[in-house]
Amino acid sequence: KTLNDLFVHQLRDIYYAEKRIVGALPEMVEKASDPQLKQGLKMHLDETKGHVLRVEQVFKMHGIEAKTVNCPAIDGILDEADEIVGDVDDAAVMDAALIAAAQAVEHYEITRYGTLIAWAKKLGRNDCASVLQKNLDEEKAADRKLTSMADAGVNLRAAS
Amino acid sequence: KTLNDLFVHQLRDIYYAEKRIVGALPEMVEKASDPQLKQGLKMHLDETKGHVLRVEQVFKMHGIEAKTVNCPAIDGILDEADEIVGDVDDAAVMDAALIAAAQAVEHYEITRYGTLIAWAKKLGRNDCASVLQKNLDEEKAADRKLTSMADAGVNLRAAS
Repeated sequence: KTLNDLFVHQLRDIYYAEKRIVGALPEMVEKASDPQLKQGLKMHLDETKGHVLRVEQVFKMHGIEAKTVNCPAIDGILDEADEIVGDVDDAAVMDAALIAAAQAVEHYEITRYGTLIAWAKKLGRNDCASVLQKNLDEEKAADRKLTSMADAGVNLRAAS
Repeated sequence: KTLNDLFVHQLRDIYYAEKRIVGALPEMVEKASDPQLKQGLKMHLDETKGHVLRVEQVFKMHGIEAKTVNCPAIDGILDEADEIVGDVDDAAVMDAALIAAAQAVEHYEITRYGTLIAWAKKLGRNDCASVLQKNLDEEKAADRKLTSMADAGVNLRAAS
């Protein structure tokens, strides 16, 4: 296995993850009560659809087939999201749980895009790196927004 | 389910995760070639043993039993680490794979400790939050070190 093999495998991994996240976000939007959180998750669903397209663009640029590989990490993170969010009746506690679940997803994507960008650069594919950087920037911004929601009103209401 | 229930569940989740990481790191240390990476992973193994003790301290402070719950997220992340690291012969490519695997683990812990600290504060447990903050700070420092290794020599050698 070469660094290029790892890069291609990781790209297929994040492709699978992004597609699963597109599938998982609508239910999270549905379950959110806080209007700012609901709106933020909805906006991130649109962004995530754009991420899928950017990953497809990188497959094309790198001359490889756009396909997914199984990604047990995102499967586990989303299973755990279902677990945390299940059995919550109180709306404010649900919002706190949704924020935690969404941040776990963001951090997974942040680490994988960070790796992909580092590897793309080492492979001399700065063009691929800069497309992937756009996804990373949006994931980081989404995570920061969730942190400020967690620190501000949402969790506060949940504890009271 | 209350916010306290979520906090306790999440604490048991990270307790499970930290213990699994203590089990997984020795093989990663073994497989690393770059002396700086090998040393960094070894140091983080010692830190991780300390994290387990701090989580046990928080269980005690919060008056709850120190026990684990299944954490499909860290199971998935570690399965994927095995998958990436397997079948790599070249030492430099192996190092790049190990860094990626270790960073995925770090980011999982960073998001969970971030959530636990936010929730502890909302629950009025600043004492628990400050113990958990020590673990978070060490995870973030470990992640930063891995990023600088990825950006510097290790991956460069892998591509050549």
